[in-house]
Amino acid sequence: MKLSDLSTPAALVDIERMERNILRMQSRMNSLGVNFRPHVKTSKCVEVTQAQIKAGARGITVSTLKEAEQFFAAGITDILYAVGITANKFPQALALLRKGCDLKILTDSVQSAAAISAFGIANDIRFKVMIEIDTDDHRSGIKPDSPQLLEVAQVLAAGGAELYGVMTHAGSSYDLNTPDALEKMAEQERSGCVRAAERLREAGFQCPVVSVGSTPTALSARSLEGVTEVRAGVYVFFDLVMHNVGVCTTDDIALSVLTTVIGHQEEKGWVIVDAGWMAMSRDRGTQKQTTDFGYGQVCAADGAPLAGYMMTGANQEHGIISRHGEPDLAIATRFPVGTQLRLLPNHACATAAQFPEYQALTAQQNLQTWPRFYGW
Amino acid sequence: MKLSDLSTPAALVDIERMERNILRMQSRMNSLGVNFRPHVKTSKCVEVTQAQIKAGARGITVSTLKEAEQFFAAGITDILYAVGITANKFPQALALLRKGCDLKILTDSVQSAAAISAFGIANDIRFKVMIEIDTDDHRSGIKPDSPQLLEVAQVLAAGGAELYGVMTHAGSSYDLNTPDALEKMAEQERSGCVRAAERLREAGFQCPVVSVGSTPTALSARSLEGVTEVRAGVYVFFDLVMHNVGVCTTDDIALSVLTTVIGHQEEKGWVIVDAGWMAMSRDRGTQKQTTDFGYGQVCAADGAPLAGYMMTGANQEHGIISRHGEPDLAIATRFPVGTQLRLLPNHACATAAQFPEYQALTAQQNLQTWPRFYGW
Repeated sequence: MKLSDLSTPAALVDIERMERNILRMQSRMNSLGVNFRPHVKTSKCVEVTQAQIKAGARGITVSTLKEAEQFFAAGITDILYAVGITANKFPQALALLRKGCDLKILTDSVQSAAAISAFGIANDIRFKVMIEIDTDDHRSGIKPDSPQLLEVAQVLAAGGAELYGVMTHAGSSYDLNTPDALEKMAEQERSGCVRAAERLREAGFQCPVVSVGSTPTALSARSLEGVTEVRAGVYVFFDLVMHNVGVCTTDDIALSVLTTVIGHQEEKGWVIVDAGWMAMSRDRGTQKQTTDFGYGQVCAADGAPLAGYMMTGANQEHGIISRHGEPDLAIATRFPVGTQLRLLPNHACATAAQFPEYQALTAQQNLQTWPRFYGW
Repeated sequence: MKLSDLSTPAALVDIERMERNILRMQSRMNSLGVNFRPHVKTSKCVEVTQAQIKAGARGITVSTLKEAEQFFAAGITDILYAVGITANKFPQALALLRKGCDLKILTDSVQSAAAISAFGIANDIRFKVMIEIDTDDHRSGIKPDSPQLLEVAQVLAAGGAELYGVMTHAGSSYDLNTPDALEKMAEQERSGCVRAAERLREAGFQCPVVSVGSTPTALSARSLEGVTEVRAGVYVFFDLVMHNVGVCTTDDIALSVLTTVIGHQEEKGWVIVDAGWMAMSRDRGTQKQTTDFGYGQVCAADGAPLAGYMMTGANQEHGIISRHGEPDLAIATRFPVGTQLRLLPNHACATAAQFPEYQALTAQQNLQTWPRFYGW
């Protein structure tokens, strides 16, 4: 099986790039002296995750209980479900624990902590629970200095749950684009989470794990003093958003969409391809960044970027490719019907999610099919 | 199984609304005297498509050959693949024809028409081919008055393919929002496609089918003289984009995402729910319309819209719900942890694609699971 034999659109993974990305992150984490727990929501793929574990990752982070179930079935037991849990998901979590999964769950409120404790008591199970800390005003979590932090810990302790630690995610790092700002955000993420752990310990609670992370902060932190583990997801593939944030080059982007030219509108300088938003996703993450790549950067079939050519429009199964600035009126000659192109995505997590499988390309240009899963 | 038993996020289909939407479209088509060939890319679901056929639809339109394969396996034979085909997809199309599928394919260039003819001759098969017409400068297709139209017909005839007809899709109707503009666009779509058919016939070609359609134009056309069939997809569920275009109300929207409140940021007036962009999709189709619904309109669990509450932010598995304008500082009391809400989507095709199955809700509030498929 070769690239030219593939039905398009197809999600290609460049294995060499992926392994380089994995090594880069793991080496950093090793030198900073922390465990690394990759977020597998990006790939939802056992083969990718096994490569991360082989390189030294310890445990995984998941964004859905379906991911937990699938990766547990593949033999991975140390799993952090890093989205606040509610009562309707307790039975699924309980079933995983009863099968032997070392699942950790998350809370950021007295209300949900109380529900976890009550369910644990009723079912004779001791949940390992992390408290989510908000270190960047971005999404969920308790502020490091909030009185609520100790209240939640108290509720968990009284209910017989195990306080496993604190975790935070500086998602606002995605909005930055200078090394200095990223380093400051990494320090803000670290210090806020460590501060929360210290307050818990001062109040007499055990707080063994201090977990931080996002791809940009993980790649920018100078010190991770007080942190025990880091989580990151998108680094495994990288994407154009991360390129604009400044933590990778286009040559690091390991995920692309293989597409075929199906037509033209010559006088407009348009190529029509068989990858629309169903293949690329509707993610326009680079729209507000310094370089807007439309729905993706166009590359030749061998992966070489074609400067200035972008997917500028997307319908469900049609993409429109054109040159930035002046239209390329010779575009139909340049890319005749049947030409294969590769498209680098704005956001790897979103683009990968559109495909039931990856076509993983070895250094020898051989293809392997790696399934991925979706849904909840 | 009741709503409150469902794991969230879940894709809900309100069967009553769906059947009302199906009846509305089919009745219009019947009174306009044309066949109706629904575009099943919206649902990718056999149960939904069967309801359309039961109401009177004749044949289906698909956007991928996987859809063709899946629906053919479910017993539907009259299928139009409405995306320009290229050589790498010929074997898949051939396999369908050899199994007895009455597949129609599409071209808009001499180059691809020649390839279709050559492949047909080499494989002793006579493809039924439609020529795509561009009636609104929106995407693919040949202009009705272009000399290329007759050249393509000539290439098909010489190669022994069957010219099945002409088809067009006025996708730019999505950018309109007044009945007058929509009616004009429907007439432009009709007259352009009929003009192409007439030119072919005048040149001595058979052109039995004249196929037009998009949900907004199908619902706005006054006359379809010369048209033999209409295609439309999103009308089956409708969505907020269609609401803004003006062809449905929020009470017609049959697809919603059921979600659960997992936390709050009270001082910001935020509710955090377990439906992020992975559930809603990244589609922000209402962003440039007159009413921007963010990532979706919030409704109570029973489907009643909660005016002013929208999903204003989305991460992969987290959604942020807030009130438009002034923050609702009582939002945590209004929607406590565990509260179920429904979210109406911007774009039904994109949101539905995120789910492996629908939870279809009967008028008696019973749930049925309807699988859908994805990929290529």
